[in-house]
Amino acid sequence: MWNAGKNAAKPAPLLIVGSVALDTVETPLGKQENCLGGSAVYASVAASFFAPVHLVGVVGRDFASDHIEFLRSRGIDLEGLQVADGETFRWSGFYDYDLNQAHTRRTELNVFEHFRPQLPEAYRGVPFVFLANIDPDLQLDVLAQVNDPRLVVCDTMNFWITGKPDRLREVLRRVDIVFMNDAEARQFCGTFSLLSAARQILELGPKAVIIKKGEHGALLFTPSGHFSAPSYLLEQVADPTGAGDSFAGGFIGYLAYTGDLSEPNLRKATVYGSVLASFDIEDFSLNRLRTLTPAEIAGRYAEFRQIAFFEAAE
Amino acid sequence: MWNAGKNAAKPAPLLIVGSVALDTVETPLGKQENCLGGSAVYASVAASFFAPVHLVGVVGRDFASDHIEFLRSRGIDLEGLQVADGETFRWSGFYDYDLNQAHTRRTELNVFEHFRPQLPEAYRGVPFVFLANIDPDLQLDVLAQVNDPRLVVCDTMNFWITGKPDRLREVLRRVDIVFMNDAEARQFCGTFSLLSAARQILELGPKAVIIKKGEHGALLFTPSGHFSAPSYLLEQVADPTGAGDSFAGGFIGYLAYTGDLSEPNLRKATVYGSVLASFDIEDFSLNRLRTLTPAEIAGRYAEFRQIAFFEAAE
Repeated sequence: MWNAGKNAAKPAPLLIVGSVALDTVETPLGKQENCLGGSAVYASVAASFFAPVHLVGVVGRDFASDHIEFLRSRGIDLEGLQVADGETFRWSGFYDYDLNQAHTRRTELNVFEHFRPQLPEAYRGVPFVFLANIDPDLQLDVLAQVNDPRLVVCDTMNFWITGKPDRLREVLRRVDIVFMNDAEARQFCGTFSLLSAARQILELGPKAVIIKKGEHGALLFTPSGHFSAPSYLLEQVADPTGAGDSFAGGFIGYLAYTGDLSEPNLRKATVYGSVLASFDIEDFSLNRLRTLTPAEIAGRYAEFRQIAFFEAAE
Repeated sequence: MWNAGKNAAKPAPLLIVGSVALDTVETPLGKQENCLGGSAVYASVAASFFAPVHLVGVVGRDFASDHIEFLRSRGIDLEGLQVADGETFRWSGFYDYDLNQAHTRRTELNVFEHFRPQLPEAYRGVPFVFLANIDPDLQLDVLAQVNDPRLVVCDTMNFWITGKPDRLREVLRRVDIVFMNDAEARQFCGTFSLLSAARQILELGPKAVIIKKGEHGALLFTPSGHFSAPSYLLEQVADPTGAGDSFAGGFIGYLAYTGDLSEPNLRKATVYGSVLASFDIEDFSLNRLRTLTPAEIAGRYAEFRQIAFFEAAE
């Protein structure tokens, strides 16, 4: 687990609820079939570098024990991972050279279609909660099962913005921090200005909004102002799948690790999220995260500081 | 003129060569006809906040004396502004809600068609030179007329990348710093990766490349690494015309003001460029720059620091 040598306290545990998938992904750099994916998986593995993770999701009988072993090897508690009769959720898609946009070829919900998150008793008091991109009704289900968590972060997607805007609005009223990408924020708020969109979302109740801009970095908005995190430039991106979830996992993982929810620490967490996303996209599936080390995370965080720095504080 | 209270030396003079135009611009916020524009005008006015500017360009007999008086009021030397028989260059275009992309309705070159930059004797020794977006052959003409300037910066556009790639390459070999926007850099270098594109351009000889990303900020590349300047978020953008040239003017103006060409100072200059561009787009034409004050520039620079800051230096 993460050790920046600065946190004397024990990292707080983290609950992550979302999809577990087998992805078939094609990018200009190649193709991989039925590889490990899903929002809860990317977020959990990214967060596992910082804090102990409890994953809630569902897989089918076909889910390989290798995947289970890998997640366990990252210290991820899988008591909340349901195994249902049927096949695991499958997503198939491709990316063009403009890697910002995933094009879906096929979605097979399979066991995910009837997924109802059921929190094991031991998970109900977990203080840090990440509701990855799932049906807002399920996100509300989870919120009904937790006991006054210290921080709830949620993600969503265009499908729910269009299909269940009122339920999504209800989720946003009940969480502390919201993730959206730039297109989603513009769509949800009906404005081209990300500043206006973020202000609208903050008015619903969240204490912070993070707008992910893919290759252009990320913006953190709080009532006191905003922070712009740069992106990390790569010579080539192998596979952008999971970048947003890796970002979220790194972000909330760092908050659980430090236990510090101040605005300056939210900025650092935004950069740690960017760091994890930048590693994720270097290889297909979660392959890069399998070999990632805390020293590499610390090194890239230092690179982000170098990339963003232009004048010492006065 | 700019006074940050830190520069005891006298700002160095600056030569700016480019177009002087009358623009008709329509954006979601309105329309303005035959207003002052052109790459040399935007760059000169932006730079005039920092250093004395010498403008080289051409206008027709129809160019209003009001415009001349405004440029003079900014301390811009107009000995190099030719007045030719005929009409001033006119550009007409519009922007959709995606303000990153200008759509040209009509271009009337008029007197600009036969423009040949002729430097007054007094301009030949000017130490800081900005070659705004014009035909690379004309940019080379200018370089043949100057006496060993300390810094030469150039801009270009897709039209020359497609039409005169070899002449453009020759320009890039002979300048110190190159500006391109992201689409132009990708097109010129035949790669989607901005990191690869910047490295290719640096290999041609320039000491630095600045890639402008519109609403996503700007990247400065040098052989030692890169810097990412955030963009400034606005509730609404009135008119993006001239943002790139205002950026260039603020950038080279700050360098001429400080006389410091170190990498850390190039970073600051990149932020000053972003500051000037952010003001430019708040209103149509150069209207916002007409009322802009040094205190406002200093205030927004401080805002950029706040937007980009995430951890104090160790």
